[in-house]
Amino acid sequence: MAHQAPPSLRTPELLYLLHGDPQELAMALAEARAADVAEALRSLAPDAGAKVLAALPFDLAVQVFDEPELTYERCEIVRRMGEGEAAALIEAMSADQQADLFRELKEGDRPRFLAQLEPETRRALELLLRFEPDTAGGIMTTEFVSMPITWTVQQALDHVAAVGRTKETVYAIYCVVPDTQALVHVISLRDLMVAGDRALRVDQVGSRRAPLTVRPLTDREEVARLISKYNLLAVPVVDDDRRVIGIVTVDDVIDAIVREQTEDVQKFGGMEALDEPYTEISFGKMIRKRAGWLCALFVSEMLTATAMQHFEAEISRAVVLAMFIPLVMSSGGNSGSQATSLIIRALALREVTLRDWWRIAVRELPTGLTLGLILGVIGFIRIELWQKLHLFDYGPHHSLVALTVGGALVGIVGFGSLAGSMLPFLLKRIGFDPASASAPFVATLVDVTGLVIYFSVALIILRGTLL
Amino acid sequence: MAHQAPPSLRTPELLYLLHGDPQELAMALAEARAADVAEALRSLAPDAGAKVLAALPFDLAVQVFDEPELTYERCEIVRRMGEGEAAALIEAMSADQQADLFRELKEGDRPRFLAQLEPETRRALELLLRFEPDTAGGIMTTEFVSMPITWTVQQALDHVAAVGRTKETVYAIYCVVPDTQALVHVISLRDLMVAGDRALRVDQVGSRRAPLTVRPLTDREEVARLISKYNLLAVPVVDDDRRVIGIVTVDDVIDAIVREQTEDVQKFGGMEALDEPYTEISFGKMIRKRAGWLCALFVSEMLTATAMQHFEAEISRAVVLAMFIPLVMSSGGNSGSQATSLIIRALALREVTLRDWWRIAVRELPTGLTLGLILGVIGFIRIELWQKLHLFDYGPHHSLVALTVGGALVGIVGFGSLAGSMLPFLLKRIGFDPASASAPFVATLVDVTGLVIYFSVALIILRGTLL
Repeated sequence: MAHQAPPSLRTPELLYLLHGDPQELAMALAEARAADVAEALRSLAPDAGAKVLAALPFDLAVQVFDEPELTYERCEIVRRMGEGEAAALIEAMSADQQADLFRELKEGDRPRFLAQLEPETRRALELLLRFEPDTAGGIMTTEFVSMPITWTVQQALDHVAAVGRTKETVYAIYCVVPDTQALVHVISLRDLMVAGDRALRVDQVGSRRAPLTVRPLTDREEVARLISKYNLLAVPVVDDDRRVIGIVTVDDVIDAIVREQTEDVQKFGGMEALDEPYTEISFGKMIRKRAGWLCALFVSEMLTATAMQHFEAEISRAVVLAMFIPLVMSSGGNSGSQATSLIIRALALREVTLRDWWRIAVRELPTGLTLGLILGVIGFIRIELWQKLHLFDYGPHHSLVALTVGGALVGIVGFGSLAGSMLPFLLKRIGFDPASASAPFVATLVDVTGLVIYFSVALIILRGTLL
Repeated sequence: MAHQAPPSLRTPELLYLLHGDPQELAMALAEARAADVAEALRSLAPDAGAKVLAALPFDLAVQVFDEPELTYERCEIVRRMGEGEAAALIEAMSADQQADLFRELKEGDRPRFLAQLEPETRRALELLLRFEPDTAGGIMTTEFVSMPITWTVQQALDHVAAVGRTKETVYAIYCVVPDTQALVHVISLRDLMVAGDRALRVDQVGSRRAPLTVRPLTDREEVARLISKYNLLAVPVVDDDRRVIGIVTVDDVIDAIVREQTEDVQKFGGMEALDEPYTEISFGKMIRKRAGWLCALFVSEMLTATAMQHFEAEISRAVVLAMFIPLVMSSGGNSGSQATSLIIRALALREVTLRDWWRIAVRELPTGLTLGLILGVIGFIRIELWQKLHLFDYGPHHSLVALTVGGALVGIVGFGSLAGSMLPFLLKRIGFDPASASAPFVATLVDVTGLVIYFSVALIILRGTLL
């Protein structure tokens, strides 16, 4: 058993309970954890989901609705709830999840639900909705603890005790200048707790360093990097006057990291990122997300046909050469794909920066040539072996053919590694996401050159014999 | 400006200071953040690193050494420090980072440093070192706050104030049965703070649900999933008698997620995961990590040569067919790579499980066929266009050749999508990491079948004309 699982709620169970005694359902649900209920809800039809939600104690229903995993389902669920119930639930959600919900709501539904919120909630929400969901402003929440810098530790502790229940986190506390509300100091609840003297002013505890902050338009990846690098539980988002307008907490950042990861893997697979779970995306949208890159790659790959046309005479004279085209070409793509994946991650982790491209190039070229030599030797042996074992007859010049394949592999794998490692740099340099340097992209890039290298090596080695 | 950066420490600056006034160096360092010093240290030679560390205030030096990013450098640094200094520093590190350091130390260095630690530290360390670094036991730390369930809220708060400074986190508090030390209740510091009545027993505050726990051998990916799903700040690791032996905190989990992500991207690129930063790995190790898969793929891809040998007669008769081999083959690999990346992530996020393979298959096949049809039409038009514009002469049967290419693309892209989506399931089913289903792996798998499909379509369409 991987972990001591709580008596978690499974969908079939829930479906059974839905058709049975409502009290039994309510009891089963009251014991559950919000994240488990959310998970079970994801596999239910929206109508059933609305019924489950109605059976939940209000506090738990709010927690369930605060689960970011429900992004796609909760829109459908609120549309099926009574207006008053829905409004109360949305009102009680945390601000960042409210914003997420409204972003997903159909255009037509938005004004109706917005009108039912308290004026203050509406204002906070309208602020958050101004930011793109991949920015700090788009994932921040507005429920944080702040206080004037003039308070004492005791006052601060009392304040946390009084308002703690309604805040996203109470573990990071933002101290501001009373007049300007500008952020000047950040303390942790731990700093307050371990402060020996509770009459100290809050600016006398904690680190003296200037607080780390982000701006609303800071990329969420950068926010994640900061929180992860400095081991923060939250980072404040400040406006031009250094007033805190929201905070991004570590759990939002984990969600963001996981989403970025999904996008990166999908991009590396050679497609647009889906933005929606695989299981929920429509057929048409799936085709659109995949066809774009596939067509672009296909059109680029047409250059291989052009290259082959150029070598038509050689192929006619030595059909044996055509047989190894897939083998040598794919090796270039494979080594390129390795190099690309290495550099994409090294760039993402800031192990290397744009300036290092030269250092990487002089490293990847010998690596690629060495790998090419290994494959070349295997290739040479394969051809000679088949010939000697009479498995296939490559003609009287079989050793020269084997040498051609081996020699071409050194060049192609070397070039593949070099091109694969440089592509992410190039993309970053011209302002694209280096993660767009997908494995198919690199393979396509290397294929045409691979053909040219192969036939050039053939022309050198086989001139006067086969060619 | 992305964020209001602290006056962070850059390496050149540090190098300059190292050769100047030691007091100026100490002053510059005292202002810095641990993570920034650690980052700067990574680009310094170990000798210089040891000097910088000696110039740091002790508390900051400990924090710097606690940075997981220093994994590879700190071994070299401690070897260059005075024995007493090194021992004091290691003693003060958090237990999980101590374990990390000892794992990286050369075999010969371990006993020497271990001997200098306090007996209690040594015992804790020996416990942690028993676990693999990809398990909960391997990333947990032993500095957590626990207390008997019989204590009051006030006693608990006083205890946190007293011991808080030395613990990894004080925000999750573990309440145990006095006799057996078994974990029965987990509360947050927030629960304690907002409890109205400080005379309440600690088991009367917080959630009544059984605590979420993991076992020492739980995979770190599973720990990450739990912490992320339930938005925890830490999760306790318990032994068979439910005694807490350590905790895994959210920042360890972020590090673990980022490492897993790097491994997944590298595997998807078609190589073994590096385990070390790209910039630090030796040439020989790099070759070993890449050559294995590259050779395996190369040997599998040799089947394409075998397939081509089989169709030698057809190629001789219709050389024009050879020209489109790279184009049609690569399209299968590309669509397969897309499907694989989608399913790897959907499996990792638990959007789909093994049982869903059938549901995915009936979805990917029509998707693939549709995508193949799109590419097929483009391919058909390309060939006919080149012919009509007299850019190349595909012979009298050019329309049939175009039809062959178009038809083959439908089959190959359809098969590519299907094979690419099924490969991760298959790997998972037989006990491998589905992330090993790399883009090159799928491409290789699809290439041979692609050739067979292509020539089969050609035999049907071109029989009696070209073949």
